[in-house]
This record gives sequence, C-alpha cells and structure tokens, in this order.
Amino acid sequence: MKTYLDCLPCFMSQALKAARATTGDEEVHRRVLDAVAGMTPELPLGLTPPEIAQQVYRLTYQIIGDCDPFRKAKIEANQMALALYPRLKKVLADSQDPLLTACKLAVAGNSIDFGPDFYLGNIDDIVETALSSSLAINDYKRLRDSIANSGRILYLGDNAGEIVFDRLLIEELRCAGEAEITFVVRESPIINDATIDDALAIGMDRIARVVSNGSDAPATILSQCSPEMLGLYHSADVIISKGQGNYESLEGETGNIFFLLMVKCPVVARLFGANVGDAILKYKKQKMKNGRK
Amino acid sequence: MKTYLDCLPCFMSQALKAARATTGDEEVHRRVLDAVAGMTPELPLGLTPPEIAQQVYRLTYQIIGDCDPFRKAKIEANQMALALYPRLKKVLADSQDPLLTACKLAVAGNSIDFGPDFYLGNIDDIVETALSSSLAINDYKRLRDSIANSGRILYLGDNAGEIVFDRLLIEELRCAGEAEITFVVRESPIINDATIDDALAIGMDRIARVVSNGSDAPATILSQCSPEMLGLYHSADVIISKGQGNYESLEGETGNIFFLLMVKCPVVARLFGANVGDAILKYKKQKMKNGRK
Repeated sequence: MKTYLDCLPCFMSQALKAARATTGDEEVHRRVLDAVAGMTPELPLGLTPPEIAQQVYRLTYQIIGDCDPFRKAKIEANQMALALYPRLKKVLADSQDPLLTACKLAVAGNSIDFGPDFYLGNIDDIVETALSSSLAINDYKRLRDSIANSGRILYLGDNAGEIVFDRLLIEELRCAGEAEITFVVRESPIINDATIDDALAIGMDRIARVVSNGSDAPATILSQCSPEMLGLYHSADVIISKGQGNYESLEGETGNIFFLLMVKCPVVARLFGANVGDAILKYKKQKMKNGRK
Repeated sequence: MKTYLDCLPCFMSQALKAARATTGDEEVHRRVLDAVAGMTPELPLGLTPPEIAQQVYRLTYQIIGDCDPFRKAKIEANQMALALYPRLKKVLADSQDPLLTACKLAVAGNSIDFGPDFYLGNIDDIVETALSSSLAINDYKRLRDSIANSGRILYLGDNAGEIVFDRLLIEELRCAGEAEITFVVRESPIINDATIDDALAIGMDRIARVVSNGSDAPATILSQCSPEMLGLYHSADVIISKGQGNYESLEGETGNIFFLLMVKCPVVARLFGANVGDAILKYKKQKMKNGRK
C-alpha cells in the first residue's frame, strides 16, 4: 500500500517513542522530532509505510546512537509470552477447533507492538478478548483447506513476544497437514520486530526452519530480501503474513497470502472496512503475472 | 501547562484534518503538512498547547484560504445537539440529582471536538455512557456548595454543539443558586470552537449573558483576552472551564476554577492520572498572588 498523509505524524510519534526507549534526555528527543519533521517534505508517498518507517528509524537510531532501543523490551516480551505458553497450550488442547483458536491467539499476539500508538490493555485481557470474540474478517476455512493441501508454508513473523503465539499456531499447522514450514524474521533489529535471536530464545527452531529475510525493514519488502528468502517466497504454496508492517509491504505483491493481524491505525482500518483493534484473517488472491498464476 | 513533544505530531494531524475539511485536493493537504512540519523546529515548548495550536491553525487557514473550515460541521453539531435537547431536559427532570446529571451531560458534550484525534462513538452512545458512568475525578460536591454561595459565575464555553449541553447545565445552575452567569465564547472561528453566532443559534443568550473573550485561540489565553473578559474573570466567584483547551491554558493561572472535560489525549490523561475518554470534574485551588487570595 502507498503511504497516506496521516502516516507522516505517526512516523514522528514512533521516532519519539524510540528515542524515549533509549534516553530520558529531552534535548535528544527534540532533536529526533525536529530531524523527522525535517524529512517530511522530502518523503515520497508512493513508497509503502514500512519503506518510509525504515528511513525514519535509521535516522532516529543514528541520532540516539543506539541501533536497538527496544532490546530490553523485546527480551521481556519474549519472557512474558513464554510464561503464558503452558496456559495457552492447555486452552488449545481443550478447544473444539484448535487451529481456529490458534489463529485467534496468533492475531492477539500481534498486539505486542511498540511502533504505532496502539494499546489494547494487558496481554491477559487481550487473550481473553481474542478467545471470546470473532475475527472481523474471517477467511479461516480457506486457510484450513489451503494448509491441508500445502507442501510448503512460509510464515512471516512480526514482533518479539508475538512469536510465541506464532509458535503455537505453527504447532497446530503441523498437526493440520504435512507441509514444510519456514519461519521468517528480520535481518537486524528494527522497532520490536523479531530477529534470529528472538526466534531462538523462544524455541522456534525446534519446530520450524528459521531464516532471516535479509532486510532491516519492519516489514517484508521483497526488493530488499535475500535471494534465499525470495526463493522461499516464490516457491511457497501458502504464505502466512503476520502484522500490519508485512501487510503494508505485501498487499500489492503476488502470492497466496493469508494476512493475520490486529488493525492498529485508522488508515489500515479504512482499507479493511474494519475498526482499530479488530482481528483480521484475510486471504488475498494470487495476482496473475506474466500469464502465470 | 507546557507543550509536550507528543503534542507536535498531534498538531500535524490536526492541521491535516482542517485542510481536509475545506478541500479534497491532496496537494493542498501535503502543502499544509509540510508547512507545519517546517514550523516544528521553531516551536517553543514553554508555550501552552493552545498557543502553539493557534499558530498552527493560522498558518493552515492561510494556506487553505479558508478562515473557518469547520463552519458547516459546527452548524450541524448545533442542530444535532438541539435536536437532543428536549430528551435531555426530560432526563434531567427525572433525575434524582439534576445538577450532577447536568454536569455529566456537559462533560459528555465535550466529546464533540474536531481537534485532537479522538472519537468515542455517536452522541447517543456518549450520552448513555455518561449517564451510566461515574466521573473519573469528581469534585461535584464542592462545585454544588460553591455554586450555592456564588454571586458571579463565569462559564467558559468550548465547542459548537457542546454548548447545548452547557445550556442544560447553566439552566440547572440557575435553579441551584442566585448567581449572575456569563457564558464566554471565542472572538472568531478556530477549529469547531463556539463563537457568538453559535451561542445565539442555540439560544444561550436567553438564559445567560454571552460575551466573547476577544481571542481566536482554541482556549482561554488570558494575555490575549479583552479587558471586559479579564474584568469578568478576576471578579468571578466561580469559573467553570469546559474542555481540554481551556484546561491547558488555565491550569497554571489563578482563579477558583472547576474544570469539566473529557480527556482526549495521553498527555492530559497522564497529568490527571486518568485515561483517554475519562470524564473529569476537577476543582483547582485558587493560588495566592501578592498576598491576596
């Protein structure tokens, strides 16, 4: 998707949050805000929001002198989610449709996000709400059927902490079919997005192959991905894309993609015809490209 | 209160909203955003948020060539609120404590605001929520007692539409005491703030004296107010201040002030120890100045 004018003030807020995560020095915070405001007139709205966010965060990290301001918050998010894991395993064991429940939990886990100004409450409340609510867009049956017939599933991760919920869903995917599953993380730290370190910390490598996409964008920007990642992307039967960043970067691309996310801003809410805070499981039809499907 | 860094992206969002209210031309929207971003490094955070907002809106109105982009929305808000008036009158007639209920409704009316990015739902839902909820900060008893002993009440209005709810409260204030009540509006249009025209449109002049404060700020900035307004301010026994803008400009000033507002942003929520969307009726003690109370 293209960047909307509404995104520009949001980038400023995100930069401020990142600066505050590193230092309490208000002069540094101000310097960051002024620098991002200074970029604004030059930002091309034809790019996707994560492409611009990548520029904004690179500049911010340079000014604050910290390439991973959410380091500690990410570790805490992984630990918090791991502590929930046994209870959620039991919820799934008792569920009438564990795969559907795992999808809902995976979307709930997407609420762990330090980028947009979005707060739903504590993770226990989020889990309770997820279990008792419906998906606002629900292409679950199609996902279930696609999984059963897939040889290769590519699962695009999003945030630290959230990846524990992804692990639960991947464990259910393994019960629901025979596919080889690859879990994708970012190449280097950006916001609270998961990297290889996070995936290893929560044991993702024990249930799926884990690869980096080769990029430091808070998204999956194909033009920045490694050849290995592109090979996996184009040979996957089903792609599961977690979070708004992956959606923003991939909704215009080809691929058999299921987008699982929580809606975090009014712009994306409008695109889905949904509300901020809604849980989405949306299938996107593969586009025809050069006569191939 | 001083301006926080969090306010700077919010000013950009507000400017965008004002531009969109006047024109669908995205080039103009972009020009406005770029201009406000360009102001950012120069903005002195020692000023109150409405003082900066005043500069931002003046620049925005100049670029869009419209000194009142919310003209139509204000008229509609007055009409919508007037249509509710008979029903709310009945609610008050049936209430055990009509003055308290009128205070709650007056705060609910403060949700009609086109400035900050704040949306609670439609006005019927807001009224229902207000009637069934408690005030998050509740200095009502002190207000009731102060009213009973007051000769002069100065009521600082905020937004169009909302002033119908203020009229209901003023009608209850007249039942609760003998005070002379003056209702204050902005001198000229700014966002959706009420001016003399709005006050006349909803019949405020039939139940109170209506005066302009002499300023086009979305607030009560005493240094910009007319001598008449300052005389009224300093001779009032009780000041009722509606909305976040009036709070932001007056919380550092002397005066026997009751702040009635709905919390509309995380910054003000933090200052009150409350949540966004909370209803506030907060008394602020008069400061000593030059040995006088």
